[in-house]
Amino acid sequence: MNKTILLKNRPKGRPSTSDFAFIEEEKPAPKEGELLLKAKYVSVDPYLRGRMRDTKSYIEPFKLDEPVESGIVAEVIESNNSNFEKGDFVNGMLQWKQYQTSSGNGLNKVNKETAPLSAYLGVLGLTGITAYLGLEKIGNLKEGETLVVSGASGAVGSIVGQIGKIKGCNVIGIAGSDEKIKTIKDKFGFDEGINYKTTQDMSKALKKHCPDGIDVYFDNVGGEILDAVMNNINKYGRVINCGAISLYNESETPTGPRHEGTLIKKSVRMQGFTVRDFVKEFGPAISQLSTWLNEGKITFSETIVEGFDQIPQAFLDLFDGKNKGKMLVKVY
Amino acid sequence: MNKTILLKNRPKGRPSTSDFAFIEEEKPAPKEGELLLKAKYVSVDPYLRGRMRDTKSYIEPFKLDEPVESGIVAEVIESNNSNFEKGDFVNGMLQWKQYQTSSGNGLNKVNKETAPLSAYLGVLGLTGITAYLGLEKIGNLKEGETLVVSGASGAVGSIVGQIGKIKGCNVIGIAGSDEKIKTIKDKFGFDEGINYKTTQDMSKALKKHCPDGIDVYFDNVGGEILDAVMNNINKYGRVINCGAISLYNESETPTGPRHEGTLIKKSVRMQGFTVRDFVKEFGPAISQLSTWLNEGKITFSETIVEGFDQIPQAFLDLFDGKNKGKMLVKVY
Repeated sequence: MNKTILLKNRPKGRPSTSDFAFIEEEKPAPKEGELLLKAKYVSVDPYLRGRMRDTKSYIEPFKLDEPVESGIVAEVIESNNSNFEKGDFVNGMLQWKQYQTSSGNGLNKVNKETAPLSAYLGVLGLTGITAYLGLEKIGNLKEGETLVVSGASGAVGSIVGQIGKIKGCNVIGIAGSDEKIKTIKDKFGFDEGINYKTTQDMSKALKKHCPDGIDVYFDNVGGEILDAVMNNINKYGRVINCGAISLYNESETPTGPRHEGTLIKKSVRMQGFTVRDFVKEFGPAISQLSTWLNEGKITFSETIVEGFDQIPQAFLDLFDGKNKGKMLVKVY
Repeated sequence: MNKTILLKNRPKGRPSTSDFAFIEEEKPAPKEGELLLKAKYVSVDPYLRGRMRDTKSYIEPFKLDEPVESGIVAEVIESNNSNFEKGDFVNGMLQWKQYQTSSGNGLNKVNKETAPLSAYLGVLGLTGITAYLGLEKIGNLKEGETLVVSGASGAVGSIVGQIGKIKGCNVIGIAGSDEKIKTIKDKFGFDEGINYKTTQDMSKALKKHCPDGIDVYFDNVGGEILDAVMNNINKYGRVINCGAISLYNESETPTGPRHEGTLIKKSVRMQGFTVRDFVKEFGPAISQLSTWLNEGKITFSETIVEGFDQIPQAFLDLFDGKNKGKMLVKVY
């Protein structure tokens, strides 16, 4: 039999396990030209919360009573498609199913020998590419600048900080526990870290650690931390608006201080960044990230939860910051 | 004798005439290498409010008990400087004085035959250059796009809209009276106008006039009108944050809906724009604006108040929207 996870309700505020339903179906048979895939690793990501809303965004909303999908590394179990062989591993946007068929469109073969399979959902997948292209295409980060990253110990943030160090920047990370702060400094080489949960005045803390002000802010969280950064932003500062996890579960329109004045006074640019806008740059990005990975210049963290049934809970745990680095579910 | 206007108090909230003081001094005598200038036209501009605050901004704050300065067209009355002759007209940042001396640094000669003297403080001065370079350097406005401008009947806004029409865009202006709306449509050729003072739901009104959404917003006002635009912004939309007059007189930190979510969902860019960052582009900008002016492709409005003593009141009147187009004081 074949377990599948459907979106049952559009979450109001914080999602819960009751927003998902498990069903069992027959294992499908691949038609002519199709593959049969068995899921190996399933990526759970904050942006999926956005797709659970019934509103227009950069990507289509999920349909109710249909399978959720996310980045998945799968094994080819049967192939009726000459581009793939049984035993190949592939990476792509796939459904939360143990087994599924695919035409092969949109799938990339991944090499188990070059990097562990899970890395293709992390540092060599959308999260690593997001870090790299966000800094390159939006941040325009230059040597010697001060870079601040929120969600610093997370999948994207930890790579952002390491790229900042490769570029010779002063890198300050913001995260939600002392353990995470220790990790970003000891494991990822950040210059300083700020635990926003135990810091009374974030503006003051940023001022202390960024004596020359902030040139680039890679924002994964939005909200009050963004406000504190804006109080310390430099002339010609750039904000990469990549995520706003602090706001995703708000049911009412979130409010806060207006930033128009700061944008004008300091010629600051705030720019929304969605990695899907830069699909043509994925190849060079993966190539650069692979080089750094092989040279030992970047490392990565994963929180790997085991068991297909744990996928919804692993997704919910993202909003409690329970992951260290990329959150994945190993499903075989 | 020589009248001079000093900044007496840093305004709290809305400025008033009591924030300024008039004194009379001896008419100065130019030293070796200096000019004696007589003010002809004095520009009053919303951004001067920012310089009255004692906070760091893109330009130094005014000092208390010293003369205010702004863009002024003056006549050379005496010259001890071989670059200027008696009878020349010059344009530059000068003090609110009837007569003043200058080394000539930072002054540009202007030609009375090419355009009226007052135009050098408007369409061929910083306001015209602001409109042109804001659209070019930040807005990246393209043919066929939808352009929205606030402060549409003002000095900058009226030029912005006309450039939008030259570029073949759908141009919607926002202003604060039916008379101004009539002006932007009849005189400046905007496609549509919205009177924000009599419009209950700005988001809805923008939706009606921008059926294809908003690609570029030239923001002179900030605040709730910006919020309404953000509700209608297109994927890859650009906001030129040029002014925030709706917030300048607020004494507490203004708050409003957070825009991080929209920036991310729609890959939108909001960017603060200060024309002084593009000084090297002034020459080509003035050249293009002069060409359009001579070809009759752009026209301009001025509100000219007469009398040196009226300078502070003319400045205050900006915040009531009493001007149509560029607000100037004729002082001779």
